[in-house]
Amino acid sequence: MTASTPNSSSPRSSDGVISPVRIVVDAMGGDHGPSITLPAAKAFLAKHADAEVVLVGLAEAIEPARNWPRTTLVPCTEVVTMEDPVEIALRRKKDSSMRVAISQLKATADKPANAHACVSAGNTGALMGLARYLLKTVDGIDRPALATVMPNQKDGFTTVLDLGANVDCTAEHLLQFAVMGSALVSAVDGKDSPSVGLLNIGEEMIKGSEVIKKAGDLLRTANDRGLLNFYGNVEGNDIFKGTSDIVVCDGFVGNVALKTAEGLAGMFASFIKQEFTRNIVTKMVALVAMPVLNRFKMRVDHRRYSGAALLGLRGLVFKSHGSSDALAFEVAMNRAYDAARHKLLDRVHDQIAATLVSLPTSADTSGSADVGQAA
Amino acid sequence: MTASTPNSSSPRSSDGVISPVRIVVDAMGGDHGPSITLPAAKAFLAKHADAEVVLVGLAEAIEPARNWPRTTLVPCTEVVTMEDPVEIALRRKKDSSMRVAISQLKATADKPANAHACVSAGNTGALMGLARYLLKTVDGIDRPALATVMPNQKDGFTTVLDLGANVDCTAEHLLQFAVMGSALVSAVDGKDSPSVGLLNIGEEMIKGSEVIKKAGDLLRTANDRGLLNFYGNVEGNDIFKGTSDIVVCDGFVGNVALKTAEGLAGMFASFIKQEFTRNIVTKMVALVAMPVLNRFKMRVDHRRYSGAALLGLRGLVFKSHGSSDALAFEVAMNRAYDAARHKLLDRVHDQIAATLVSLPTSADTSGSADVGQAA
Repeated sequence: MTASTPNSSSPRSSDGVISPVRIVVDAMGGDHGPSITLPAAKAFLAKHADAEVVLVGLAEAIEPARNWPRTTLVPCTEVVTMEDPVEIALRRKKDSSMRVAISQLKATADKPANAHACVSAGNTGALMGLARYLLKTVDGIDRPALATVMPNQKDGFTTVLDLGANVDCTAEHLLQFAVMGSALVSAVDGKDSPSVGLLNIGEEMIKGSEVIKKAGDLLRTANDRGLLNFYGNVEGNDIFKGTSDIVVCDGFVGNVALKTAEGLAGMFASFIKQEFTRNIVTKMVALVAMPVLNRFKMRVDHRRYSGAALLGLRGLVFKSHGSSDALAFEVAMNRAYDAARHKLLDRVHDQIAATLVSLPTSADTSGSADVGQAA
Repeated sequence: MTASTPNSSSPRSSDGVISPVRIVVDAMGGDHGPSITLPAAKAFLAKHADAEVVLVGLAEAIEPARNWPRTTLVPCTEVVTMEDPVEIALRRKKDSSMRVAISQLKATADKPANAHACVSAGNTGALMGLARYLLKTVDGIDRPALATVMPNQKDGFTTVLDLGANVDCTAEHLLQFAVMGSALVSAVDGKDSPSVGLLNIGEEMIKGSEVIKKAGDLLRTANDRGLLNFYGNVEGNDIFKGTSDIVVCDGFVGNVALKTAEGLAGMFASFIKQEFTRNIVTKMVALVAMPVLNRFKMRVDHRRYSGAALLGLRGLVFKSHGSSDALAFEVAMNRAYDAARHKLLDRVHDQIAATLVSLPTSADTSGSADVGQAA
């Protein structure tokens, strides 16, 4: 019924959940390393009785977790810094916590994988590079994608991908993102047929580039064949309206949208703070308004939507923000846990396979201009 | 010294300002038409003693302005609606207020132009299409661009272009945007050597596409030759930090960034409202906090940064948001006035000419993949 031994490379047909779920943590990753990853792992374990944790880090750093229940320590000797280029992470630091952690997801012919999912707050470029190198992509996926969630006005989350892993995408890549995003949302959020929006620009403008137009055609066809639930074109503001469950776009556009939103949120926070601390009167007003302001703050707290998923790999890797605190890292661990428990890998595998059978379009377009431009 | 007769197609060498400045208003444009354009024009005239206004609209709609000082009425018989496709605006409605208004900027061999700048809150696609058809682009500019301002944490404005007129841009287009944006900011905001940032994605990611890399090279060269002040790469959050005075990007990315920011601002406003109206207690808190909240609201009021400029045309056209109220439309008129008064057209012309002499790169790259992909 349920596979308790993680083996992420072989598809499973069971409908049950995976239990226990084993999560491997890159304990050294992020701006704060073990000072946040260890408390996060401890809190996570306390809340999930069927979870196990593998902590990878420098021996002395992970030592405090020596006697934790359901915890395995895997010491290593190196750390990928937030500034290390991908090449250093790939070629030099072969015993880094990030690399060893990702390796735990690898199954071989003789040996199943050691863990179901990996969480790291480390350097995104290095994490993506190592994960891609060590795990390889799922059949039918050209490039992995980075998917994150943003809050929306429906008090839910909108999943947006790609967030920066791929800067020049073809229409087929955008279709793959849609399929992977659908699998993610159905696994993690439990939505049966999540809707997919294609990020485009306004009706009144010249509507999208050739790549976007072709992606729209592919998505409509996939929708008509019951492969996914395509909502249609959406615009930047629809991310926060919650118009569709998933928004797909190329990594350049997705990264700009995410960073723009972060920048605006930062400016708003700074302006609100300035106005409430302007003088003694406004400070007294702030005291009175504090409970209301805190409720507002909680609703837009970015830690609540921590945990970007690297999709399309033969292993589940989740990225927590580099500046994550323990709460944000725990949220990322929860997402990894939900994804592993509900067999995200199998879902991606199955949905991609079904799409490839139904829409064998990649070969038709591989000679086109946009593919030629892809880096 | 100063040219009081607008003649936007001939370069002027005078350093003085243009006075009087004549602004033509598409009185019918936008969601609210004359009910906001007429009060805006009246308020604008009251504040600028050297300004003249040309109101173009249906005869009965502009009739209330019959006896206004420094005002000329130009009746027309048609209106471009917010839903009209560009083709209708271009081919059918030849006596529309939008078309007649833009035509006032056209100079011929026999006759100077009737106005220095045009302001419309109408349909962006139609406005761009008509302006491009009627006015043509400046020598050295392949495509006009749409530039808007966004507020930043330095309590200033960041000018962002392109905002949706061009979806597939080459590196040369981005260089042209940088030159035009610099001319705009120096004319309207009076900054001598405004800095230009190239919108890119994070250091940790694969840094930008081939087009962006090449644009960076062109901008660095232009900077080294004293043609503009290139800051370097910026990210989405830098728009609101005010890292550079100008941010250049292709129209697709710019449109997504703008709409994403609008969407997030809308969500924040809605959440704040919900929290302060949750119950009788929070409503009383809202009363106490009102003056502070209003100051905050004023700082982020989008009406304060109304008025997107269509740059690169042989005439100054400004676009106010379709949903503009009288204040927002007046702000757009102010921007048009400042641009005309400080000879934005001549600045763009001169800077583009200097750039073309110094960086004759367009021919070198016209066979490259990205140009081939341009729509």
